Amino acid sequence: MSTEFAELAQRTRDFIDGVVIPREADARGEHGAPDQLRLELQQAAKDAGLFAPHVGLEFGGLGLDMRGQAVVFEQAGRSLLGPLALNCAAPDEGNMAMMEKIATPAQQAQFLAPLAAGEIRSCFAMTEPAPGAGSDPTALRTTATNTAEGWRIDGEKWFITGALGASLMIVMARTSPRGATMFLVDADNPGIEVAEVIDTIDKASPGGHSRIVFDNCLVGEERILGAVDKGFEYAQVRLAPARLTHCMRWTGLASRALEIAIERVSRRELFGSPMAELGMAQKLVADCVIDLEASRALIDRTAAQLDGGLPSARLASSVAKVFCSEAAFRVIDSSIQLCGSDGIVTAPLGQFLAEVRPFRIYDGSNETHRWSIARHTVRAQKS
Amino acid sequence: MSTEFAELAQRTRDFIDGVVIPREADARGEHGAPDQLRLELQQAAKDAGLFAPHVGLEFGGLGLDMRGQAVVFEQAGRSLLGPLALNCAAPDEGNMAMMEKIATPAQQAQFLAPLAAGEIRSCFAMTEPAPGAGSDPTALRTTATNTAEGWRIDGEKWFITGALGASLMIVMARTSPRGATMFLVDADNPGIEVAEVIDTIDKASPGGHSRIVFDNCLVGEERILGAVDKGFEYAQVRLAPARLTHCMRWTGLASRALEIAIERVSRRELFGSPMAELGMAQKLVADCVIDLEASRALIDRTAAQLDGGLPSARLASSVAKVFCSEAAFRVIDSSIQLCGSDGIVTAPLGQFLAEVRPFRIYDGSNETHRWSIARHTVRAQKS
Amino acid sequence: MSTEFAELAQRTRDFIDGVVIPREADARGEHGAPDQLRLELQQAAKDAGLFAPHVGLEFGGLGLDMRGQAVVFEQAGRSLLGPLALNCAAPDEGNMAMMEKIATPAQQAQFLAPLAAGEIRSCFAMTEPAPGAGSDPTALRTTATNTAEGWRIDGEKWFITGALGASLMIVMARTSPRGATMFLVDADNPGIEVAEVIDTIDKASPGGHSRIVFDNCLVGEERILGAVDKGFEYAQVRLAPARLTHCMRWTGLASRALEIAIERVSRRELFGSPMAELGMAQKLVADCVIDLEASRALIDRTAAQLDGGLPSARLASSVAKVFCSEAAFRVIDSSIQLCGSDGIVTAPLGQFLAEVRPFRIYDGSNETHRWSIARHTVRAQKS
Amino acid sequence: MSTEFAELAQRTRDFIDGVVIPREADARGEHGAPDQLRLELQQAAKDAGLFAPHVGLEFGGLGLDMRGQAVVFEQAGRSLLGPLALNCAAPDEGNMAMMEKIATPAQQAQFLAPLAAGEIRSCFAMTEPAPGAGSDPTALRTTATNTAEGWRIDGEKWFITGALGASLMIVMARTSPRGATMFLVDADNPGIEVAEVIDTIDKASPGGHSRIVFDNCLVGEERILGAVDKGFEYAQVRLAPARLTHCMRWTGLASRALEIAIERVSRRELFGSPMAELGMAQKLVADCVIDLEASRALIDRTAAQLDGGLPSARLASSVAKVFCSEAAFRVIDSSIQLCGSDGIVTAPLGQFLAEVRPFRIYDGSNETHRWSIARHTVRAQKS
Repeated sequence: MSTEFAELAQRTRDFIDGVVIPREADARGEHGAPDQLRLELQQAAKDAGLFAPHVGLEFGGLGLDMRGQAVVFEQAGRSLLGPLALNCAAPDEGNMAMMEKIATPAQQAQFLAPLAAGEIRSCFAMTEPAPGAGSDPTALRTTATNTAEGWRIDGEKWFITGALGASLMIVMARTSPRGATMFLVDADNPGIEVAEVIDTIDKASPGGHSRIVFDNCLVGEERILGAVDKGFEYAQVRLAPARLTHCMRWTGLASRALEIAIERVSRRELFGSPMAELGMAQKLVADCVIDLEASRALIDRTAAQLDGGLPSARLASSVAKVFCSEAAFRVIDSSIQLCGSDGIVTAPLGQFLAEVRPFRIYDGSNETHRWSIARHTVRAQKS
Repeated sequence: MSTEFAELAQRTRDFIDGVVIPREADARGEHGAPDQLRLELQQAAKDAGLFAPHVGLEFGGLGLDMRGQAVVFEQAGRSLLGPLALNCAAPDEGNMAMMEKIATPAQQAQFLAPLAAGEIRSCFAMTEPAPGAGSDPTALRTTATNTAEGWRIDGEKWFITGALGASLMIVMARTSPRGATMFLVDADNPGIEVAEVIDTIDKASPGGHSRIVFDNCLVGEERILGAVDKGFEYAQVRLAPARLTHCMRWTGLASRALEIAIERVSRRELFGSPMAELGMAQKLVADCVIDLEASRALIDRTAAQLDGGLPSARLASSVAKVFCSEAAFRVIDSSIQLCGSDGIVTAPLGQFLAEVRPFRIYDGSNETHRWSIARHTVRAQKS
Repeated sequence: MSTEFAELAQRTRDFIDGVVIPREADARGEHGAPDQLRLELQQAAKDAGLFAPHVGLEFGGLGLDMRGQAVVFEQAGRSLLGPLALNCAAPDEGNMAMMEKIATPAQQAQFLAPLAAGEIRSCFAMTEPAPGAGSDPTALRTTATNTAEGWRIDGEKWFITGALGASLMIVMARTSPRGATMFLVDADNPGIEVAEVIDTIDKASPGGHSRIVFDNCLVGEERILGAVDKGFEYAQVRLAPARLTHCMRWTGLASRALEIAIERVSRRELFGSPMAELGMAQKLVADCVIDLEASRALIDRTAAQLDGGLPSARLASSVAKVFCSEAAFRVIDSSIQLCGSDGIVTAPLGQFLAEVRPFRIYDGSNETHRWSIARHTVRAQKS
Repeated sequence: MSTEFAELAQRTRDFIDGVVIPREADARGEHGAPDQLRLELQQAAKDAGLFAPHVGLEFGGLGLDMRGQAVVFEQAGRSLLGPLALNCAAPDEGNMAMMEKIATPAQQAQFLAPLAAGEIRSCFAMTEPAPGAGSDPTALRTTATNTAEGWRIDGEKWFITGALGASLMIVMARTSPRGATMFLVDADNPGIEVAEVIDTIDKASPGGHSRIVFDNCLVGEERILGAVDKGFEYAQVRLAPARLTHCMRWTGLASRALEIAIERVSRRELFGSPMAELGMAQKLVADCVIDLEASRALIDRTAAQLDGGLPSARLASSVAKVFCSEAAFRVIDSSIQLCGSDGIVTAPLGQFLAEVRPFRIYDGSNETHRWSIARHTVRAQKS
């Protein structure tokens, strides 16, 4: 790690430990931090020169590449509030990254600028309830029809993170038999209803995860993001980095869980636990360290490939996603075990486990990624 | 399994599926079912001839031995409300079993009878906050002093399940440098304060888990359970069966989680999932089945040893506890994975995961049991 | 376990420890014990009243049911020579069991009697090289044609255990488009060639695993085992119990591996290993004990179902096969780890690992069993 | 990876595939390749410009740093003969690296030059039979006494790889109550006896693993390597890189095992295996890819730390050793499973499993490394 990155990581860590973690108790309850707290923390991050690390300088960010993000996002992830404070939480972070690449200057001025500044929140409305689906455009049931009044979006989305309270929705809709298009839609469009906030085990995402209904939702031509029928290509562009930034943040949370557990185990030693039990605790600690180090190594390696624009980055990001999501879960689970009955108290480790669990499912379930990794590997060998 | 047990298991299953599960939606929220719902379900269980399966006939139960309990409790455990309905939930169930063995007839009439009838709830107040502890009497900090006004209990207990709302507390207190004694204490004793209900990840136990403070809590001689200074011996008598009944109930919940997942996966097949992903789903299903079958086999084998009064039952119950607690967690975790994003919806699978997680920690952490298993095995081989 | 079984298990254990294990050094090298050693040990087993425990009394055995075999075979399996000594090694043991059920009295007199007495060895020639196959008769390429000179068998078999040195071959051949038939064939039939003994990692089976070529191999009508075209039904009858007796024997070998490791770890303690390392050793020991106990519990449960003729036995035997084969491998692998560099010395633990590895593949690969378990479970739930 | 490294890796791979692997059949049997074959392959490697990649240019090598070695050694490790061909096999490779750093020019001319040229072989004689030991000098029982005739070495070493056939032995002996010293000893010294070649499960190391007895082994002052009493410090210098080069080579062998398995699975598809089994195969393949990629990422990260001389490299090398040794074992084990019965044929996968197994034990057992990782982590957090 370069000296510059190391210094930035340390500053981020100090900010999280000194400013963010002390506010965690204020964010208990449903759906993450209240807006007021989020804005306060964002101001503090701006003051500390740590705001929007992934965003280009022209939009007020630090302009870090993926390897730089890796070191900062891990530190930010040590608190569930950290990514909010630095304005690098999902789904905003991935939306900003995609808009920097493909939005028009006018779109950037209208939507990216306030998003990068933390003034608004956004969501990414792609997933649909079964049997609607992932990468197969023909399975996408939400449609956008070019009418005299503009593009009319109709359909239903499911598990859309952050929809409640978002000002901007990036909506994927089918625009031809084989193609889909992304639209930038104002959340107050009368054709949109956030029909239900799903009661899930994770609670920390602002706005939670919602079902959204689009019914005669009309948008103008200027709201097309990129080109018509290219939506799935852009989604791929968004997915690999977004997957990796998830890995960074969750690795940070897992490392904090382990620190909490070590802190507690160390105290117990003072009173004398049986040495043999200590040996089992050391096994758990060592396995956590190995998981965290392997996660970091995979993240760094994948980030370098993404920064270099290598085609191998896509497979690497699948590998990292599967490994890091399972490693973070194992580390937090073991940290709970190390803490004994204190571990099942909701705050903080009990909540950490609930927050990290879904990552093995979203961003492509680990089974789907394994299938993709295997198929790619077999095909590459055959060719 | 005998025909009689098989028939009883089927009747229990039908009762849980037909009567209890439909009421689950009424028990959402903190700390399990409201009293009214519990009493309704208990009446239904009485009507169905399934009430208090572990309790002797003279107290209105079915008088089943451990092997019989194994088949009924697993079915009861399929719903978090099931053990409440059948009045075989922890900690009441273990308290009843112990009182049947060691309480005086007067104590049984006063406390066991209403407990067996579901009229009151109870708790078992042994665990203390660190550095107070488990099986070492000298580490027990709560004391009972024989005074002119009776036994005076002073101290603090921690993670006492069901204390809030209990009428009866069985309290373990140190009564001599090397000995501890159990007392039957009315919960409305002015020397008792339920100081805090701990916010834990599991929510289904009525009353949750509490911190209790005993301050000049006075009880009479007639409230001694068993003999003075024999408390830890009785605790051992209580622990091995109580540990195994936990295994039974959680195996039931895990088996229901898998059923829910299979039901969902089967529906998805209709719409056609990729066959390869199906193969990975089948791997998950098969591993769950293997875990469940091995759990049942270990439970049955340990139950037979407990019924036969074999000394090997203690080691067997440690083995069963470690295996079943980890297997149930794996099965529920895999069931969530099988369901995809539906799996992380709180009800029911998300909650199941949170409810089962603590079982790897309480009743002796799995690390402590492993230490005990290893030490016993090495010593047995050497002798 | 009944007193009778416990006494028999203890006698078997004493015999293995006192008589068989001291001869292990004489059986080093390829393909198990030399015939002379095998015959000596078999005589000793006869003298000890432990010979042929699974065989009916009329053929000189002990007539044990599956639950009885479970306790004796585990003890026998503690040495790789043990099953040979007791004449209960695969594939002879499974062949005897099948012939007791379906051979004619004349066939039993001619083939089963000397096999049960240990005078001859046999093999079971079903498996064929890819793409020939398992349970699909149409994939079976070896044919038996009814000609004027008798049934003429032509084809090739692969991985046939014990073929070299066997006097009797039970050969499965296709006799109609949808059916296969078993034949009792003398190994000295001029139409049979043991073309190759495959160099596999396991070395302890007498005769190893061979490729056999049948070329104009003529046998009479009286050599049909059971009925024409019913071969696959008999194979199913043979497979479930044969699978379970493998579990019994390998569980025995694994338990001996752990004893060897504990013996060595205990000695090291004398010289003082770091306590923390000891804790990790205890974790390994405990996990081995849990694996062994769960294996025994599954074996016992499945044996009871087989003894009772329950249809559930087939699924149970698949579950037991997968679990026990993986558990035995883990236990031996961990025992090696516990022994440090001594563990990788070939005799005995290094060899044990090589011997047990194939069990996850033969008798149906664990993947095939998992597929079958999942499919059965899903179908059973749907119906 | 830089273009230069990528090109070198590809050339190495081509050399291994085209020149080395075709000769594997000539190296069957005990203790690796015969000398003649080794010399032929080394000449071919010299001709290909791939010889001694880790050795400085002045000794005829390629002068690669650890990151460069990482890419070449992995490719070399794809065949058990590859490291021999490139003269980068253990223990010679680690001995060369250490001698480049601490030997005198005269010692380098006499010993390092012929070793680097492949003219002689060497061994590293540190380990002793229990209770002699690792890093504790007082536990070292082999002594070197400064006498009138020179230093007299007496003692016994155990599990010394490559001793048989080595010309040079680097011997660690206690030279003061708290210190040990390394000596460069000619193997034909009359005071040395290779008393036993241990029969271990791995067979590919030239010379195998031996017990050596030193009895009045006299060497001159000029044979001291480095400074008196500094032996354990040098051992630490040797260990971290040597550990990592093991990771590189075994990762290469594991990746080849997977290629063999994929090749076989792909062929089977042609004949149609059940799709569901294919799904389980894909799970195995994906998990292998993840293990290999995480191994590579950890190796690369640790190599960078070693190249940079960072103190963190020691912990990183422990983490890499534990992860890579277990990952390589899992990958080869899964590759066997993927191949079905072909997998247990000795050549090549059966042998690969036996060769890789010891790596979880030597170079510090994984339990010792875990203990060290945990202790370091806890202490670092406390400070």
